[in-house]
Formats: sequence, C-alpha cells, structure tokens
Amino acid sequence: MTSPIETDVVIVGAGPVGLFAVFELGLYDLKCHLIDILDKPGGQCAELYPEKPIYDIPAWPEISGQQLTDRLLEQIEPFKPEFHFNRMITGFRKLDDGRFEVTTDDDEVFLAPAVVIAAGGGSFQPKRPPVPGIEAYEGKSVFYSVRRMEEFRDQDLLIVGGGDSALDWTLNLQPVARSVTLVHRRAEFRAAPDSVNKMFAMQEEGKLDFQIGQVKGLTGSDGVLQSALVKGPDGDVEIACTRLLPFFGLTMKLGPIADWGLNLHENLIKVDTEKFETNIPGVFAIGDINWYPGKLKLILSGFHEAALATQAVKRIVSPGEKVVFQYTTSSTNLQKKLGVA
Amino acid sequence: MTSPIETDVVIVGAGPVGLFAVFELGLYDLKCHLIDILDKPGGQCAELYPEKPIYDIPAWPEISGQQLTDRLLEQIEPFKPEFHFNRMITGFRKLDDGRFEVTTDDDEVFLAPAVVIAAGGGSFQPKRPPVPGIEAYEGKSVFYSVRRMEEFRDQDLLIVGGGDSALDWTLNLQPVARSVTLVHRRAEFRAAPDSVNKMFAMQEEGKLDFQIGQVKGLTGSDGVLQSALVKGPDGDVEIACTRLLPFFGLTMKLGPIADWGLNLHENLIKVDTEKFETNIPGVFAIGDINWYPGKLKLILSGFHEAALATQAVKRIVSPGEKVVFQYTTSSTNLQKKLGVA
Repeated sequence: MTSPIETDVVIVGAGPVGLFAVFELGLYDLKCHLIDILDKPGGQCAELYPEKPIYDIPAWPEISGQQLTDRLLEQIEPFKPEFHFNRMITGFRKLDDGRFEVTTDDDEVFLAPAVVIAAGGGSFQPKRPPVPGIEAYEGKSVFYSVRRMEEFRDQDLLIVGGGDSALDWTLNLQPVARSVTLVHRRAEFRAAPDSVNKMFAMQEEGKLDFQIGQVKGLTGSDGVLQSALVKGPDGDVEIACTRLLPFFGLTMKLGPIADWGLNLHENLIKVDTEKFETNIPGVFAIGDINWYPGKLKLILSGFHEAALATQAVKRIVSPGEKVVFQYTTSSTNLQKKLGVA
Repeated sequence: MTSPIETDVVIVGAGPVGLFAVFELGLYDLKCHLIDILDKPGGQCAELYPEKPIYDIPAWPEISGQQLTDRLLEQIEPFKPEFHFNRMITGFRKLDDGRFEVTTDDDEVFLAPAVVIAAGGGSFQPKRPPVPGIEAYEGKSVFYSVRRMEEFRDQDLLIVGGGDSALDWTLNLQPVARSVTLVHRRAEFRAAPDSVNKMFAMQEEGKLDFQIGQVKGLTGSDGVLQSALVKGPDGDVEIACTRLLPFFGLTMKLGPIADWGLNLHENLIKVDTEKFETNIPGVFAIGDINWYPGKLKLILSGFHEAALATQAVKRIVSPGEKVVFQYTTSSTNLQKKLGVA
C-alpha cells in the first residue's frame, strides 16, 4: 500500500459534471483528485457517444461528447486536477479526524475532508449472465475483465460472448492458457470480421474450440470451477474449465457507493437543493446520480449543482475562512487563478 | 391599442437566461414572446460587458458577453422566438380564463397561460439626481430619456450630466429646442471629446449655454417646471427652463414587477427549487432575479432553472398532456424540432 494521497476534495467520477466541479472548486483554491472506473475522462459522453452531437449544452448549438469533454478539460487545466483512471472504489469510511478515507482496487488511499460523487449513471459494470449460482465463483473462477493476462496462465478457459471483447480475449489468451473454449449462442458475431476469421482459423488448427450454445450451469465448489453445462443445438454438453470469462457487455450500476450508507431514492442519492449534500455531511452528490424534487438528468443541471456544492465544500475544507462570491468577469483574483490576469 | 398577442409563454427579459428558456420551452413546443427594456438581446452581458470575457460558462474556457448572446441566439433560432425590445411592462393581471395579461408602454397586450420572469438584476433605470421634490415633475417636465425629439420642440431645456448621453442630447436637441443649457459639475467630461468640442463651439456661437454647477432645487407647480436653482462656483444661479433632462447613468431596479404581488426576499423573487415558480401559480422566475436557499447569481444556474421551470410551464400550457422527458442526443423527435434530423 502506498502512502495516502491527502487532498481537499475527492471527486468520484470524471464525467462532464465531475470535470466542471474541478473548475468551481478550483476558483476557491480547492485541489481535486478524480477517480473513475473508465480509462479516460468524459464519462458516458466520451464512452458511449463520443461522436454523437448534443444539442442542449447552453451556448453550444451542437457539440459532441468528446468535444464537450475536451473543452471542459481545457477549462479546468489551470487547476491541475489529478486523475486516477481504471479504478474501482473499494473502501469508504469517515476517520476520527473528520476526513474521509477512500480506497481503490489499485490500493490507493485518499484522505480528504470532502467527497463529491459525480458518478453519473453509476459505474460501468459488466453484465452478469443468467447462470444460477455464478456469484459464488466471481473473483475466484469467474472474471468479467482481464486485468493481468498472467492470472490466466495454464488455465482451462471458457470464454462466452460474440462481441469484440470475447473474440479479442479468445485470441490474446490462447497462447497463455492451457485450453480455450469459446461459446456463443450462434455462429454469427458482432466482433470485427478479422478477429472472427482468426478465431475460426485457430479452431481449424486445433488451437481452441468453438461451441454454439449458452451456459446453463456451473459445477465446482468453494468458488473453484470444474466445468460448465452448455446447452447447444444438439443438446447439453459438459465443458471442463477452471476459469469462466463472460463478456456480455456493460451496464450501469450504482456500484460500491450503494454501501456507503447514503439515503437513496430509487437507486439515486438524495440531496438537498441548497448544497447538494447527502445525508452524510461532507459527502456531496451532483449530476445524474443525485435526486431531489424536480431533478432532471441534464448535464447543465450538474454544472449548476457543482457550483452550489462548492460553496459548502469550501466551508468544510476551510472552516472559519470567509467565502467570498466573485465573478470571473470582474475579479482580478479569480482571473489570476485562471492564468488570464 | 393593437389586438392582443396570444402565446404560450411571455418571457420578461431577453438576457442569456431568458434566451436559453426559449430553447428549453421550445423543445416542448412552447412558443415564446420576449419583452426587454433594452434595444437588443443579451441583457447585462450585451449591455454592460459585450467585450469582456466570461470564464465560467461550462465548456467555454473564455467567451465574451456578446459571443455568449450570439451563440444562444443561434441555438434558439429553430424556435423562432419573437422579441419586443425597448419595452417597459406597464400592466400585469390574471384574467378570469386563467391567463395572464401583460401590457407594455408601447400599448401591446400579451395573453399567455404562463409568464417567466428572467429579468436579471431588474430593469435598467435612470439614476434620479438628488434634487428635492423632483418626483413631482417626472413624466411631465423631467425626463430621463428621449423617446421622441418632437416632445422637446420649442422648450427651454436644462440638460444635466457629463457623459455621452448628456452631450449627445445637448447637440441633438439644440436645433429643436427654444433654448438649451447644459449643466455639469465641472468642465471635464466623460463624453467623447469630439462631442465636447462641438458643444463648446456651439456655446461660442451663442447657440447654447454651459454652466458649471449642480441642480439644487426646482421651481414650478403641478409638475410644470419654471426654473432650476443651480449651485455653481460663484454661488447660486436661477436658470429658467421648462424641461429638465438629467443623465446620471443607469441603475438596476426591480421595476414594475415589484407591484405584481410576488413574494420577495431582499428585492429578489422567492421561488421553489423544483419548478422555480413564484407564489403566483403560473408565474416563474429564473436567473439573477430569483432567490432560494443556496442561490448564486451565476448564468449557468439560470440555465438549470430554465430547464426545470419548463417542465411545470408545459403542464400549465398543455394540461392533461403527458410530459415526456427526452434527450437531444437520442430523440429523433427533438432533433426534428431543432432541424437537425
């Protein structure tokens, strides 16, 4: 475990609202670290529709998700935010000194007096296939992503799916694994034709096996997988395997935040409309992940929420200090922070 | 009086927030008429700092007030808003059919089931000079602006001030008036040097009079002015005049809206944070003119408020119709309205 990262604010989520929060907090000299499960900033905008035009960002008659992300990154550049991508938050607790400790699956520890949750629709998480009892194997024999290929060395892999992830990992893990079986419900694939052709060529060479079918059950004990029951066009077959890798796409889940003790409203975090603070003082929620009467999941609403939350965050991080509201248009002080005066 | 203009929404104020309200309302097929006391759209942004950069509009690292106005006008163009500039609202009442009747000093009558006040800091109004009893002459002998030059024909004018308005009207009204006296507290002017030179030249020619001093009192009765007492460097002088035109700059006032029966908080209109509705159902207030706990006078907050108010406005204008919330990124229906699908 590395030494803790001490900062003013931990922002959970680096989508457009998390990014703009850096700007508002930065105007008040608050230093931010952002944690995101994705590998880049922009959240859904950059992940789901980077090229798709958005028409309702004020003063942008048309802007793509990627452009919006890029402009926001440019806007917050003066405040030097620090990003931690590809991280899942694994721990959250309040310390005796009043600060929050946030830990990630990369063994980082963050200490901050305020946490701003800007996690949008939640974290992108792999869809779990409808296989009875699969939960018991997750993290031991069943994996939804490949972090380190070495973990799959000399294993008997059962890879399930017909998209790029399934095909790419079939091809990439084949040299490492003891055996690879790919299962897909039909012989047509969504994956790139080149990958599909390569997979069939390797099957011809006897380097892997491809089966049409659907996984119906798992056999094993204590999380250690022995085989999977696959229902195919010619009936059920038992396929010996020690690791199962289902690639059924991503879904949005509230994720570990659900365990923080936050008051929820239909899977969204309840906040007030004065500070956008949750029921845990010092923890704020802005953007699509929060709820209050009248809430609309609009990016522009998240921008407003970031601005109002900032006032309360500042009072927490700098208690006793007078919070002076100024305009970027007229305040030389703010303009200096932005590097334009 | 012309026949009434019937519309879905009357927006009071054509600043950035009023303009963006047209966009949000337009997505829900609501037709808007905007009334503004200024002669152009953009409000304070365009009037007070058209060239000054603003740094806190999300995804605009830097934008001038005029650029912001222009981009918003471009964004709302598909919804064909109708503008009524140079108008002061003179009347407001609720009709028996539930609609509001809004009248202006240009004798227009608007009928709409919803009114959105987006009047920013209020209406720009001329500063009243500290002359005892001046109110009794206002609108009869004392005027703070020149609507029609003919109203000053053959009058003895006393023009007060050292800025462009005072100098410009001194020069422009001189050919029309019977006599013109300009009074300013010193011989240095804020007005364009060219205008000042012209004024002094006309004084040389005996076409007008310039006096250093300050107006201390007025003589007349029933609003009919006879003379003004001017305290100058050599003592008081009495200057005969039938019209007084003080040009002491503009100030922001809540204006006639103050008489609508709206609940106020320190001269701002109290609203809820779900719909941004005032205590008068059907009347909404968004942007700098409203107040609620946590309120910040930020343009981006007005944008958010416009979006949330729209949901409630739609339910008033189209009762019984289901209000479906859609995204511009994914809804072909909305994209058709925007003219991009």
